[in-house]
Amino acid sequence: MNKYKDLQEAAYKANMQLPKLGLVWFTFGNASAADHDQAVFAIKPSGIPYAELTPNQMVIVDFDGKVVEGALRPSSDTKTHAVLYKHWEDIGGIVHTHSTYGTAWAQAQKDIPIMGTTHADHLTVDIPCSPPMPDIMIQGDYEYKTGFQILNEFEKRGYSHLEVEMILIGNHAPFTWGETVEKAVYNSAVLEQCAHMAYLALQINPEAPRLKEALIKKHYDRKHGSDAYYGQE
Amino acid sequence: MNKYKDLQEAAYKANMQLPKLGLVWFTFGNASAADHDQAVFAIKPSGIPYAELTPNQMVIVDFDGKVVEGALRPSSDTKTHAVLYKHWEDIGGIVHTHSTYGTAWAQAQKDIPIMGTTHADHLTVDIPCSPPMPDIMIQGDYEYKTGFQILNEFEKRGYSHLEVEMILIGNHAPFTWGETVEKAVYNSAVLEQCAHMAYLALQINPEAPRLKEALIKKHYDRKHGSDAYYGQE
Amino acid sequence: MNKYKDLQEAAYKANMQLPKLGLVWFTFGNASAADHDQAVFAIKPSGIPYAELTPNQMVIVDFDGKVVEGALRPSSDTKTHAVLYKHWEDIGGIVHTHSTYGTAWAQAQKDIPIMGTTHADHLTVDIPCSPPMPDIMIQGDYEYKTGFQILNEFEKRGYSHLEVEMILIGNHAPFTWGETVEKAVYNSAVLEQCAHMAYLALQINPEAPRLKEALIKKHYDRKHGSDAYYGQE
Amino acid sequence: MNKYKDLQEAAYKANMQLPKLGLVWFTFGNASAADHDQAVFAIKPSGIPYAELTPNQMVIVDFDGKVVEGALRPSSDTKTHAVLYKHWEDIGGIVHTHSTYGTAWAQAQKDIPIMGTTHADHLTVDIPCSPPMPDIMIQGDYEYKTGFQILNEFEKRGYSHLEVEMILIGNHAPFTWGETVEKAVYNSAVLEQCAHMAYLALQINPEAPRLKEALIKKHYDRKHGSDAYYGQE
Repeated sequence: MNKYKDLQEAAYKANMQLPKLGLVWFTFGNASAADHDQAVFAIKPSGIPYAELTPNQMVIVDFDGKVVEGALRPSSDTKTHAVLYKHWEDIGGIVHTHSTYGTAWAQAQKDIPIMGTTHADHLTVDIPCSPPMPDIMIQGDYEYKTGFQILNEFEKRGYSHLEVEMILIGNHAPFTWGETVEKAVYNSAVLEQCAHMAYLALQINPEAPRLKEALIKKHYDRKHGSDAYYGQE
Repeated sequence: MNKYKDLQEAAYKANMQLPKLGLVWFTFGNASAADHDQAVFAIKPSGIPYAELTPNQMVIVDFDGKVVEGALRPSSDTKTHAVLYKHWEDIGGIVHTHSTYGTAWAQAQKDIPIMGTTHADHLTVDIPCSPPMPDIMIQGDYEYKTGFQILNEFEKRGYSHLEVEMILIGNHAPFTWGETVEKAVYNSAVLEQCAHMAYLALQINPEAPRLKEALIKKHYDRKHGSDAYYGQE
Repeated sequence: MNKYKDLQEAAYKANMQLPKLGLVWFTFGNASAADHDQAVFAIKPSGIPYAELTPNQMVIVDFDGKVVEGALRPSSDTKTHAVLYKHWEDIGGIVHTHSTYGTAWAQAQKDIPIMGTTHADHLTVDIPCSPPMPDIMIQGDYEYKTGFQILNEFEKRGYSHLEVEMILIGNHAPFTWGETVEKAVYNSAVLEQCAHMAYLALQINPEAPRLKEALIKKHYDRKHGSDAYYGQE
Repeated sequence: MNKYKDLQEAAYKANMQLPKLGLVWFTFGNASAADHDQAVFAIKPSGIPYAELTPNQMVIVDFDGKVVEGALRPSSDTKTHAVLYKHWEDIGGIVHTHSTYGTAWAQAQKDIPIMGTTHADHLTVDIPCSPPMPDIMIQGDYEYKTGFQILNEFEKRGYSHLEVEMILIGNHAPFTWGETVEKAVYNSAVLEQCAHMAYLALQINPEAPRLKEALIKKHYDRKHGSDAYYGQE
């Protein structure tokens, strides 16, 4: 009896969704699913093509990034996931992709501005882009520090990770998270679509303003507020 | 015997077309089909993924937005549909999407200019983009007011909803309609394709002029005029 | 025994290729195949969705645009095809699409510049874009005159229709042709790809020069010259 | 017993990957696989559509470009492959495509700048774009000289072909290579993705800087350095 079986299955399914949604090519991405009671998460092994993945290859890692179970080396981004799970006890999944439009904004070192209601349906602020990491953080324990780059950016901006479930690492690419790994995958797709449409809107009209506050509040609240009426109860 | 079965089937098929045509991701869109004799329409339930939809989940709603039959909560945009059906007795279907290029023009707060014959085959004017709604309309009964935002824009411009079967809501996204819900779906695809090609044409040549009147008239009339010769009789 | 069966089959297959190659949506395009001995061509019926087409629906038309056989009304662009077949005895197929990038260049009223060897593998000059037609030609027998718009443009530029097998009609869309209808379909795809890459190249570098003469000549000649060595003998 | 069977199979599989990855349309590309012990390579025959290819059609050619075995004429780019295999004894595969974004950068005559970590995961410098070839090289033995254009560019820049496994030929298109032909195909896809994202990043922010050295070094080393920890051991 494998006590991590459900976790591995959830992580496996989420990873397999990424190429299907057009968010990942080859091995450029990874998803993990966490169990805070057992204080572990299941993550994609490093460098294995999606076509060859199986659920039981998902590596079980603790919140300090140490492998607990699994024959394969975990994703090279494992420590970033570990840091986030350790500090954010209420997230159950994390996804990292190099999706085309999201990564382009990260390379441009720009926040993705909130230009429309699609964006406001999911968050009320621009999708934050952290600065590229300082050299000292890069040369040290890079992936571990990437986790802190995310935590620091949220601290600096005063954002809640429950309200803003996504970030761009400057010059690198997106990370997203959520209550479950399925939600984290969904957030990666939302980020990519918002990134695409904000890009186009500003090409069409470089002077186009950000969405006004009344619309931001309305769209966010109808999905997330105390009187939300989107979806089923 | 379900007297709404045909209506539900039509609404279901139209909703299922939207992701296939690349116009909708996840739950970002909805289609409805109306029966003016029974004074009701069938619409997608809110927040249900397309992969899980079934025809009998389509919610039956009257033209004041009240649910007549159905176990699920209808689309959050239901009241917008209701307003349009109540005021426009000759439309049988409405579609709302957040399709990429159409939404980008809405975010840019620009009409989609009539740049070529593909556009003129379907309408003789720019695809209108309403201004974003006033705060007072947003904070009130938002989706109900969105219907009036559309009606008011058509009134202001002196457009007929039988000749112009589409609009962008500024900062939001497209709505389209038609004699049938199939036609409304088709119009959503036409809008997206015109939005894409107008975007590209103006990137290639920012000085490119709108289509001239003689071509607008010719292309529209050969499909829609009294002597139309496009299609079969 | 149907003496037009092969012709209908060729036209049918070519029409069915167009949506598969991403060059046509809904009914926005048509292909025809000609038999100069019988002095007729087979063309798609007007306004019939591709999914419902059958080979024997292809309408047989003579080179004056008169229907010779077929229960359905032929494509609204039939007379344009007829004019070209009547004047160019050595072409066996014609294709008309509203493909995205080709149509965008037509809407921009710009020739597609020869920017690379992909283009030079197929023709040695910019893909010509005719001016929009004069109002007098539009208001008259429009589709018939469209054929002459093409002939006149080739005359004016001194181009051979055997060397340049494609044109954009300003504000409208591409027409292509070839020895066979299969070749005409191929040319529509080549035009679209060249249109896409020229667009991108000029977005990346607005000062990028046209391809130089030595490369134009080399690439064209290795496929089309008397000493061509591309393909099998 | 065919002593080239494995080589033909490898070249065949690689060629068939190219249209699947969206890197090649029709016959615009070719892949070859080399065996340095036998001093030959297997390459796609010229002008044969991918849908009709079979493994035993792959033509066996020596490193001077002479056909050793095979009924069909080899790819018109065969001599370029031969020159590279002759000079670079440690590469086992070469791929040439006219992929959309890579070719657009070649037409723009610009190196693809290293804008993010996706790029740095694979190489530490901009993807080089050679100038268009001098007329004298074009008019002579063109494909043979194209090989030297690549060798000269690497010489001039002081690049190692083991560290930089890709190049754009100015006004033409990409060539990539690798230890195996599978790796060369992978490199063609990486080039296309980096080309796409660098294009977008500079459209979003024309002032966006190249990736800084610390990040270049970190990402390259974690995949390729002596202490690499990406992938499985």
